[in-house]
Amino acid sequence: MAAIIQDAIMLFGDSITQAGWTDGGVGARLANVYSRKFDVLNRGLAGYNTEWAIPVLEQCLANQQDQPHAAKIRILVIWFGANDATISSSPQHVPLPKFIENTKRLVNLVQSPESPYYSPSTRVILITPPPLNSHQRPARDPPVADRTFEITKEYAEGVKEAAAATKVSVVDVWTAIWKAAGENEASMSAYLSDGLHLKPEGYAVVYKTLMKTIKEEHADLHYENLGSVFPSWNLVDRADPGPSVQRIEI
Amino acid sequence: MAAIIQDAIMLFGDSITQAGWTDGGVGARLANVYSRKFDVLNRGLAGYNTEWAIPVLEQCLANQQDQPHAAKIRILVIWFGANDATISSSPQHVPLPKFIENTKRLVNLVQSPESPYYSPSTRVILITPPPLNSHQRPARDPPVADRTFEITKEYAEGVKEAAAATKVSVVDVWTAIWKAAGENEASMSAYLSDGLHLKPEGYAVVYKTLMKTIKEEHADLHYENLGSVFPSWNLVDRADPGPSVQRIEI
Repeated sequence: MAAIIQDAIMLFGDSITQAGWTDGGVGARLANVYSRKFDVLNRGLAGYNTEWAIPVLEQCLANQQDQPHAAKIRILVIWFGANDATISSSPQHVPLPKFIENTKRLVNLVQSPESPYYSPSTRVILITPPPLNSHQRPARDPPVADRTFEITKEYAEGVKEAAAATKVSVVDVWTAIWKAAGENEASMSAYLSDGLHLKPEGYAVVYKTLMKTIKEEHADLHYENLGSVFPSWNLVDRADPGPSVQRIEI
Repeated sequence: MAAIIQDAIMLFGDSITQAGWTDGGVGARLANVYSRKFDVLNRGLAGYNTEWAIPVLEQCLANQQDQPHAAKIRILVIWFGANDATISSSPQHVPLPKFIENTKRLVNLVQSPESPYYSPSTRVILITPPPLNSHQRPARDPPVADRTFEITKEYAEGVKEAAAATKVSVVDVWTAIWKAAGENEASMSAYLSDGLHLKPEGYAVVYKTLMKTIKEEHADLHYENLGSVFPSWNLVDRADPGPSVQRIEI
């Protein structure tokens, strides 16, 4: 059984989060720079929207009874919208006002003192869905576009609205990728693999934008400002190693 | 605070484990294929030998009192030897008989019924240190080789001896890389970055060899034989999502 050695960064989202463990993905990049500091818990669920995410996040968070034995989540990244923004005939679609309400509810699961999962020390960061490149989306049967550039943009704005309402940080990946692509929908193929999911180049933009937000708004949790949980090998007392390798709270 | 949602694979070792989060590293590869199944906890500590690892592993494992609240370690990978095998004048050196004894002691922390960390359901897998390419090692001051091909080979044999004595699986990375390089020390530069640490090509050999052992000796824990903790999105009950997204033990 695993003792709690490192606090955690939890990444909660859809397939774009789930694929964060692929080469160059945002989860892998975070795990690497936070090595020996924080564990990265990837809670990405392909295909999920915010409506289905709520009962999942309730399970991923420790309630007040279990909190004394649970790993601290120092940063909770919430990144939905790509599926909520499907066209209204899709089973994944969530109307925009409901998406905004759901996003606020996800934040409030940790931020509201009334929540059984209340965790005032957890910093919540919302991420906007990436822009959609409709030129890259495959033909469907029936041959309709499942998502559009314009609708996804509205959902990205919705995330910003939810962040403002709950006073949490927001990483505007929609705008970062849009600008990186020279504000040209077709050029976004340099960052998107299928018009929806991210290439390593897309995750590089996400990582850079996320780390900028952490540096500017949560500097104490930037990896450069954190020591390691266990000491460097050259600080180990060779005559009596045990006391010199005790875990340090960071 | 994080609830326990996924069981874990714990990777315990030295810098070669710690760097497993880099692109193409073994930790990142495992996290990707075990996504939505097991979390990968990287407990790699650069520069550490088995002597210093013992008091660290005692902290990384939950004792019997804390076990009811702790995440299950389904697979514990122990991978040392690269630092123990430094030449005897090095502060990291551990004599071979002591290295073998320490490796057995690490295994017995989870495997011995007398241990406070006893966890009979945890499968332990030992990995042998990779072969050393002395042609690639940088010049030192004083200009002596810090490690040699021959000594590292003895420590790899020592890991196999410890595995046999404790009846646990062993992944012979030493031999796998040696054979991949055509049994030629200088050719190992295709797999080793500095004669000691692994390139992505080296980690690819480690991953392949480790997954072969899991498939052959612990097939029930191979990712292909495990479902996901949360259901696929198209199985969610849209009318009443909560009950349909309850976490499943895998």
